[in-house]
This record gives sequence, C-alpha cells and structure tokens, in this order.
Amino acid sequence: MLIEASCLLDFTCDSRVPSIFMLRPKSGVGQFVVREDLRTTPYLSMTEFADNYGNLCQRIVLPIGTFQVESRVVADCADEIDVDYNAWWVPIEYLPDYILHFLLPSRYCESDKLGNMAMEISLGKKPGYEQVESIRQWINSHIRYEYGTTNSSTSALDIVTSGVGVCRDFAHLGISLCRALDIPARMVTGYLYGLKPMDLHAWFEAYIGGRWYCFDATQTEPKGKRIQMAYGRDAADVAFATHFGNVYLNNMIVKVEECTDLS
Amino acid sequence: MLIEASCLLDFTCDSRVPSIFMLRPKSGVGQFVVREDLRTTPYLSMTEFADNYGNLCQRIVLPIGTFQVESRVVADCADEIDVDYNAWWVPIEYLPDYILHFLLPSRYCESDKLGNMAMEISLGKKPGYEQVESIRQWINSHIRYEYGTTNSSTSALDIVTSGVGVCRDFAHLGISLCRALDIPARMVTGYLYGLKPMDLHAWFEAYIGGRWYCFDATQTEPKGKRIQMAYGRDAADVAFATHFGNVYLNNMIVKVEECTDLS
Amino acid sequence: MLIEASCLLDFTCDSRVPSIFMLRPKSGVGQFVVREDLRTTPYLSMTEFADNYGNLCQRIVLPIGTFQVESRVVADCADEIDVDYNAWWVPIEYLPDYILHFLLPSRYCESDKLGNMAMEISLGKKPGYEQVESIRQWINSHIRYEYGTTNSSTSALDIVTSGVGVCRDFAHLGISLCRALDIPARMVTGYLYGLKPMDLHAWFEAYIGGRWYCFDATQTEPKGKRIQMAYGRDAADVAFATHFGNVYLNNMIVKVEECTDLS
Amino acid sequence: MLIEASCLLDFTCDSRVPSIFMLRPKSGVGQFVVREDLRTTPYLSMTEFADNYGNLCQRIVLPIGTFQVESRVVADCADEIDVDYNAWWVPIEYLPDYILHFLLPSRYCESDKLGNMAMEISLGKKPGYEQVESIRQWINSHIRYEYGTTNSSTSALDIVTSGVGVCRDFAHLGISLCRALDIPARMVTGYLYGLKPMDLHAWFEAYIGGRWYCFDATQTEPKGKRIQMAYGRDAADVAFATHFGNVYLNNMIVKVEECTDLS
Repeated sequence: MLIEASCLLDFTCDSRVPSIFMLRPKSGVGQFVVREDLRTTPYLSMTEFADNYGNLCQRIVLPIGTFQVESRVVADCADEIDVDYNAWWVPIEYLPDYILHFLLPSRYCESDKLGNMAMEISLGKKPGYEQVESIRQWINSHIRYEYGTTNSSTSALDIVTSGVGVCRDFAHLGISLCRALDIPARMVTGYLYGLKPMDLHAWFEAYIGGRWYCFDATQTEPKGKRIQMAYGRDAADVAFATHFGNVYLNNMIVKVEECTDLS
Repeated sequence: MLIEASCLLDFTCDSRVPSIFMLRPKSGVGQFVVREDLRTTPYLSMTEFADNYGNLCQRIVLPIGTFQVESRVVADCADEIDVDYNAWWVPIEYLPDYILHFLLPSRYCESDKLGNMAMEISLGKKPGYEQVESIRQWINSHIRYEYGTTNSSTSALDIVTSGVGVCRDFAHLGISLCRALDIPARMVTGYLYGLKPMDLHAWFEAYIGGRWYCFDATQTEPKGKRIQMAYGRDAADVAFATHFGNVYLNNMIVKVEECTDLS
Repeated sequence: MLIEASCLLDFTCDSRVPSIFMLRPKSGVGQFVVREDLRTTPYLSMTEFADNYGNLCQRIVLPIGTFQVESRVVADCADEIDVDYNAWWVPIEYLPDYILHFLLPSRYCESDKLGNMAMEISLGKKPGYEQVESIRQWINSHIRYEYGTTNSSTSALDIVTSGVGVCRDFAHLGISLCRALDIPARMVTGYLYGLKPMDLHAWFEAYIGGRWYCFDATQTEPKGKRIQMAYGRDAADVAFATHFGNVYLNNMIVKVEECTDLS
Repeated sequence: MLIEASCLLDFTCDSRVPSIFMLRPKSGVGQFVVREDLRTTPYLSMTEFADNYGNLCQRIVLPIGTFQVESRVVADCADEIDVDYNAWWVPIEYLPDYILHFLLPSRYCESDKLGNMAMEISLGKKPGYEQVESIRQWINSHIRYEYGTTNSSTSALDIVTSGVGVCRDFAHLGISLCRALDIPARMVTGYLYGLKPMDLHAWFEAYIGGRWYCFDATQTEPKGKRIQMAYGRDAADVAFATHFGNVYLNNMIVKVEECTDLS
C-alpha cells in the first residue's frame, strides 16, 4: 500500500542548538521510498552523513527563535509484516560479525539485568520466534501504555519497575528481554498507519531464522503498513531528533495516510 | 539557488537484469536536498544500501520488456563553487586514513602510468590548488569533447591517446593526473545547471588544504549550481546505472531547471 | 619505552560458551605494536573481525572444562601522555561526523542525567582541556577506588551514588561528565606500566582541540607508558572478554614490564 | 599445521617516502594467528588503521638511506583448502550488499573487456565452482609463469596479450574472468608453504555457494597451508607495500616453514 507520512516539528530555542535529525528513510525489505521532502522554516540547509548502521543523519544548528522542520515521505509499504513461528534461534557462533553487537546491553536496554525475567516470560517456548512473540505479548499485556509517563532518560529497567510507558519504552523492554536470551534485537523508529493516537512510533526487530523480524509490543496483533525511518541499538542511536542544548517542542503534527495521488 | 533536476531512463531487456542505480543524493556541503522522487514504470520496488562511501545504492532486477526509472531531485545548490589558489598540498603523512585510497590507481584512472605527464602539465605550479587547476585547464584545452567517442570501458589512458572523450573521461583523466602528483582525487556524478547539451554529468574533486574542492574539466571556468549524486574512486564505483546483463537504453531525458514552486 | 604486557585468563565453563575477546591491539598514536602472541590451552583457534571502531575482535566458543587464553604484547609506548591546557572545546557543529556518537549516552554512561553535576564540577573552567581535567581530578578525589565493589552492571550513575568503584567505573563517570558538557568522550582498555596492584586497566579519552587526549581518573597525575587495546563508547563495546553464558574466571595474571630483550 | 612465515624487506630511499604496508594478518576461516612480529631497522614506529575490508594497514614514512622492515607470523593454517564442485553460482539479486562491488571491474581487472573469453573458457561448465575451476585451470595451462616479465602496472588484459606473468597477474586474470561471469572475486595476498621459488604470494577467491573459496592459478592442484595477509579488489587495494615516492628494493627474503617450537 502506498502511504504518505509526514511529521511537522515546531521548535523554539533561546540559543543556537546543534541538532541531529533522522528523518530521511531508505528503501529496504518491505518498503520502497517513492518520495521524500524535507523543509525548514525559516529556511536553513542541513548536511547529511550515513551512520554506522547506514541511516542518513541530518546535521543542522537550530537558530534562536522558532523553527519548523517538516519531513514528508511517500512509500510503498508491505501490507503485512512477516510472521514465522518456525524462525529458529541462531546460535551465537553462527551469527554474522556485524550482528553481534545487537546482543550487547545499551543505554536504554539493560539486558544484563533482565536475564531471569526473560527466562520466566519465555518459559517453555521454542527458541526463536516463539520466544520473542511471548515477550511481545507479555509486554503488551503487562505494561500500561500511557503518554507522558516517561522521558528521554527512561530505560527498560525503569518501566519494569513502573509498569507504564510509551512505544519507545515498550521497544526498549522488548529489545532488552531478547538480548537477555541471546537473541539479537534492534530498535526501529518510523510510522505506523492507523496508529491511535497518531504519533511518531517505535518498535523492535529480532534477528532469528537468519533475518530480522518486526515486533511491536504496543499492538495486540501483527500489523503491517509501516515506514521504517532508522535502525539502531536503542533510542540513543535512532532518535528522530537529538538536540545539544535546550529546545522547546511547541508542537508536533504527525499524519500517516493512504496516498492515492502522487502527482 | 533552488534547482530541480530529473532523469528519465527508458530501458528494454530481453532477460531479467539485476541492476544497481545511484540516483538518490544526500545533502552535504553546498547542497541541501529538499525533495527526491524515484518512480518505476511498470511499478517495481527497489531496496537500498549505503556503500563504503556513504552513497545510497538502489538494487533492483529489471524485468523483461520495457522499463522506466525516473529520478527527480529538488536541491538548494551553491551558486558558486569554492576557488582557493592558496589551498595547499597536504603531505601524505598528514592525510586522514580514509582519504589514502583516493591516491591509488583505479579501474579507469591509471595514475601509475601518468606521472611524467602530470609533472609536465603542472610544471612550476605551486603544490595544491594551482597544480590541480593547471591539470583542469590542460584537459579542457587539449582533449576534445565529443559525444559517442568513448564507452564504458574507456579509461584515462585511452583518452590521452585518442584526445577525445566525454565528461566521464575528462574526470577520469583529471583524477589520474592528480593522483600521479600524490593529490587525492575522486569522481563525482551529478547534474550541472546550464550544461549544454543537457545530460547526466561527471566531474572530479581534489583533496587539498584539508578539504575537497570541485573541478570540472569540461567547463572553461568554475561553475556552481551542481547537484552531487555520488562520490567514489571512479566510474566503476559511481555509475548512475550498473547492469549485470544486456540492457538497451532506448532513451534518456535529463532536465535541470530553476525551481520556483515547490508545492 | 618498550613494554611487554601479558594477560593470562583461566576459565571454567559448564557448557560451551560463545565469547568475544579484544586482546589484540593496533599500532597508533604513541604506540607501535612490535609483537603480539595469542595462545589458547587446550588449543582452539579463533576468528577475527574489525568492529565499527576498527578494533580487532576475536570470536571463539569456550569449551566445557578449563580453558586458558594468554595474550602477550610488546609495544613501544610513549613515556608521557600529552597534556595541553590550551586544547579548546570543539563546537558541535564543527565535529567530524564520526565523532558525534561519542556525545550520546550509552549503557554505562548516563550523561543525560549528569548535566548539573558536570557543570558544578567544571564551574569557571575554560571550555576544553581544563574542564576535562577538573572532572578527572574531581573523580580522583571524590570516588574511592576499591576492588570488588562493583560488577559488570555498574554504571556511572551507580558510582555517583555509591562513591566507590574501580578503573572501569572511574572511566565511565569521566566519560559521562564530559558528554554532559558536549565534549566527545570514549573508553579505552589496556595496560598501564607501574599500576598497583597490577591489573587490566581502563581509562578515557576526550576529543578536544581537534584530537583525542588521554585522561585517567584513577591516577593523581598524568602517566604515560600505556598500551591501548581497544576504543569504544563504554565497556559494552570494549570489554576484554564478553561471554554469552556462564563462565568462571578462576584466575587472571597480568604483567606489565619493561622489555629489554626482544629475541 | 603451525607455520612460521617471515618477510624481510630491505629498502633504500633518496628522500623521505610515505608508505603503506599490509603485513599484519587477522585470524579468520582456516587461519589462527598465534604470533606476529613487526620490526624496523633503524627503529621507526608505524601507526595502523583498518581499511574498508577490515585489513590492518601500517603507515610510515621511510627515511632517507637504507631501511628494513621485517614481518613474522606464526599461524595455524588449514592443511587443505576447501573444494566443492557443488558450490553453486549465487544469482546477483541474492548477493549480500557488501559483496556486490567484487563484481565490478577494478584497476588491474578489466572484467568489462573479458566477457567473451570467460564464456569460452567456461563453456558447458556448471555455474559456480566448476566455472571458476575451469578458469583456474585455463590460466594455469595457458599463461606462462615467469618472474620479472611484468611490473606494478601490468593488468589482466596485459597478460592475456603477453601470455606471461607472475602470481599477482594470474590472480588478476582469474578475478577478471570470474567477474565477467558475474561471480564475485577478490584478491588475496599472503604466504604459501612449499612455494617454489619462495616468495610473497597472491591468489584469488570466488564467492560461490554463499561463501568465499580459494583458487590459485599458479598451482596445478588445490593446496592448503596458506597464510592470508590481506583481501581486496585487486593489487591496488592489497599491495604488501605501497610507496608514494621512489624506493629501491635492495633485497627481499621470504621464509615459510613449519613451526615446531613456539617458545
């Protein structure tokens, strides 16, 4: 399905603030990027570089005063995400070199502290997809989704304690529990068609059966129609916006709609 | 200046042909990519990856029959390219590690065979920008530009012999002569506003004074208003299209215009 | 000074345990690696790959029973580390792309939570080397070094609370406080000649004045004669040994001596 | 088998010559590097970096006068190289992204000009290992090995014409013919036990059946006991020594022996 997603970010800064955005997706499995727009008001140019994971990052110094960034994407997205209960766990010795670091703990994913919890949740499950799916379901049914309960410092461990979080936190917990079972896992940021309420979204992927599979603990069932914006170890790697200074986000408008006319 | 560039490629294949395109630029120094479009007819999706140089590459298998790819870019481009006769030659021991391989010969740039020629051309010039500019001028005045005289196997050495070539060959020769003087040089593919006749274009950059400078041996004087699509060692790295099989290019339409309305 | 350093690790495993070692250093600034040895008993081979930071990583599956790895390095090391109170803070917009992610929080370095503390400690200091040195001195005088007080899950924030830690923790805190001031910082693992008691060591580097400078909060004054083994964001990236399973470290013998005979 | 290989290079320079060596191998499939030594006389330190392929490169500026580099390696090497006539050709659309550029022509491997020759040689062979083996045999029986007949500018095409070359040229031709058949191929430099006369050696690898296989056109049959030093597209990427200036190689002593005592 052809989807048009857009994100308008409206900031105010009291001083010049160097920032990094990750608002330009690549085509990939289940996603063909047909069109992208990136606009700034007042007009300011950005430069780009590809990070260690191949994500495009936009560098800019936000000016004093108000500033808007608008990113638009039109992409052909898979209607369904792949589900395969037979996708097996890959023994660590057979993982490709570049996958290994997705096993390690990271800023928001203290997998080193969640071993027991991961084993309890996935008890009796077949190594691989079944384990990850049991984790996803556990989070979906045990962690309460509530906007505004967490912030940019909240980690997986924090929401185990608090029992509440948002999509980013759900993803961090899913990633942490997978890594605790020696399953490589990574964070994805992007858009999900039909998300309610609409917002920028985040979920996770697990490397099983020799490839990455998508899991979203905020949803009750597998849902496609996603646009992947960036991949990384956790939110420290793939934040939509990283600011080095104080920035007030006055407003954010996210839209994800079916695209019927490309002209 | 805001420039809209587009390239329509029309192919016919007798068999399925795996292909790699490099039709999606990044923002960078002197270039802010505001919008990109990539369309295929009949509709086929592509996947993307970032190569060793951070260029986005599009993978696709061209189908049997006719096939069109259309890439559109709107970018804010520097009106002028930087010119600095004081940009000095960087001694090799001070070059950053990742710059070093731009000193080595590559498929179309036999710098190892052009040492004497490079020294003669640049005789008496100050190491650095002056040397490169003397190379650029020499090529511009000694090699005849003529469309259709060379092909995808033509190298820098070939056009030294033949004395004739197109933009890609001019760039290869410029790169080769720079490397022969121990000046790192790389190929750039992209668009140039006002190019006559309009076509996909290629030029080269030299690393002097601690940064890359743009040189275009097809032009009589420095000209800005360029959109950079990809960077690499030579055309083997950065061809707009690489086909692994027989492909007939029926038509190619390139447009580069001032963009006055972005809506 | 020519230094010979060795590390003998003696393990027992109840099951096969995939492991990654980082025991093979590269030559670099202030360090020329003359000889390296890597032995295993019983004999088992390893494979190697270069990670995102160019560190060599050794992959192996530890066998059931006892297993020893011995790494030996002979390197010519700088007698002194560079000290430059004039090394200035580099504004974020001028940092090279690949340096940027050393500004972000990571598993053991919650820089996002230590902004106030970093500002208090460095109050009145000149941006750059002076700030980092004030951080180093603060840690050295306020955190008590005590072996066995922390473990592989201990983070910078933890030792702010506990006030006690080992070299790895001191480095994590130094890194976190630097990043909180928008100074890129990274972890280094290696050997330090004359360390008492002798052990594997860790310290940190800050990127100021356009290059990396060495800081070691466990020492009262700058000391050279170091062998750098690996660089990364924190201990998650550069652990000497990462085990995916239960491993008992029976014994570890570290020696760092002047090398007078290379034969 | 445990092999000790060493290479002593004796140079004279009239001026300071920046140089890059590739004399420090990594452990990998069929190779565990137990010990490495790198010595310079007069003593000069080198710095190292990992290139795009993960090879360690040593940077140094050779001094005026005579200079020696000695590299020693002790490695446990596979006695046999893998041979598998069933290793299939991998269709290009299924190749991993990072393998793709081993399909492209490079400085010494004009695969774009050798399509017909490759097809004739491999006529009737099963796509994959059989094709590559037919290429290897053809080169072995049709190109004459003669020391001193070629130089650092000689390419695959050159020895098709001349019919004579050394190991490096044999490898280049093998690589070119493979790529002409859409089989990824890369150059390997290293040591071969029992080579007569003993020398630094080069061969090639082809990516078939989902992994790299070793082929050596200078030998009449598959032979193991090799130490791989570096991998790349061709000799421009993986020369043992790359000099940016005039260097006289006075002497080179290469030894490859069974190692019976590691002490």
